[in-house]
Amino acid sequence: MILRPDAVAVVSGGMDSVTMLYMLVDQGLAPRVVSFNYGQKHAGPELAMARYHADLLKLPHNIIDLFSLQNVLKSALTDPAVEVPEGHYAADNMKATVVPNRNMIMMSIAAGILISDTSHILGVGVHAGDHAVYPDCRPEYIVHMETTLKVANEGFIRSDFQIFAPFVNIGKHDIVTIGSKLGVDYDYTWSCYKGGSHHCGKCGTCVERKEAFVLANVQDPTEYEEASV
Amino acid sequence: MILRPDAVAVVSGGMDSVTMLYMLVDQGLAPRVVSFNYGQKHAGPELAMARYHADLLKLPHNIIDLFSLQNVLKSALTDPAVEVPEGHYAADNMKATVVPNRNMIMMSIAAGILISDTSHILGVGVHAGDHAVYPDCRPEYIVHMETTLKVANEGFIRSDFQIFAPFVNIGKHDIVTIGSKLGVDYDYTWSCYKGGSHHCGKCGTCVERKEAFVLANVQDPTEYEEASV
Repeated sequence: MILRPDAVAVVSGGMDSVTMLYMLVDQGLAPRVVSFNYGQKHAGPELAMARYHADLLKLPHNIIDLFSLQNVLKSALTDPAVEVPEGHYAADNMKATVVPNRNMIMMSIAAGILISDTSHILGVGVHAGDHAVYPDCRPEYIVHMETTLKVANEGFIRSDFQIFAPFVNIGKHDIVTIGSKLGVDYDYTWSCYKGGSHHCGKCGTCVERKEAFVLANVQDPTEYEEASV
Repeated sequence: MILRPDAVAVVSGGMDSVTMLYMLVDQGLAPRVVSFNYGQKHAGPELAMARYHADLLKLPHNIIDLFSLQNVLKSALTDPAVEVPEGHYAADNMKATVVPNRNMIMMSIAAGILISDTSHILGVGVHAGDHAVYPDCRPEYIVHMETTLKVANEGFIRSDFQIFAPFVNIGKHDIVTIGSKLGVDYDYTWSCYKGGSHHCGKCGTCVERKEAFVLANVQDPTEYEEASV
């Protein structure tokens, strides 16, 4: 276990953030892995995957408990009374899966940890495929967030601080291509928003996951629920 | 109890944020009061004061549990092994009381709640006296934060969204003057960072509190620990 991390990687346990973590390590960095439990229905399998990779890479891992946000942030991802919608991500109903201001909440906390660590790189897995649904995955958000973090913490944050968002302008299949070359075992990543024992294969993020492997021409190791019906 | 809040007020239970809350109410708004427990040593008395005013004003109150940040955000305010420094705020040792990125963390969460409520005003009690020590209390931070919140939540946050930071360019004694006219009972506000049974009267925020009443020419209702020695 490293004693002095030089980056903070926000890792959900999904394909994108896990691949971003491997890119940081490939660049010779030793990040602290930070994950969040905000009452998402898929917290169990998702966070287990984040832990798997942190342990495999011998990196420190913190799971931040934001469970008290479950009742105050309205989203199909956290509300037991609302069904996770099925279908393609681009569809309008996927907006129900938005968790209000989620990325800024997670990145604000991660930045606080980064300052405490005196490390300087904040890694996130946002990607271009999310732009249509999630405004906090767009490049303009990343640019504004980086500046605001510097202003908010002037004198405390390192002058070489930067946000590492390598996928902000590329799609999920490109992520799979990059990750496969870096040896990411995607069988140990979790996408499904429903959080069952297997990926459902029908919700927006499952549809996107399957598509990414096909487009990248990489074999999909995932066992989907629908296949067993 | 109101059913549909039209603002979110971040209220610690201190003089500044409580006065800001009364200003919002004075303007005819019905804010949701949001407070945070991030493991600060003075959480007990501070949060009790926030609750007192929310109840008195018949406003909904949420205390967000961020206790898991206590171990990852380094500060004299949260670390049991580090003493809260004494003396005047302007002194260099008060930097130990900075909680890294605290205001952005709290305001990010408050903004997520505001979007869930479809309300549009985010009230905070930052004031000019804090500029020297806390970079996230300066006007330039507030400006950047407002823009970043709009970009991060485009299509979800109301177009009339704004941050209400009425004290960002005025000092603590001006706050006391304003609050006294609005009928704020300052005996039910908590400043002391040490979190004992009474205000210590010696830590930076106690010194600042006493000074504010003197400068505003308002009687200080506070019972200080030192006076009883």
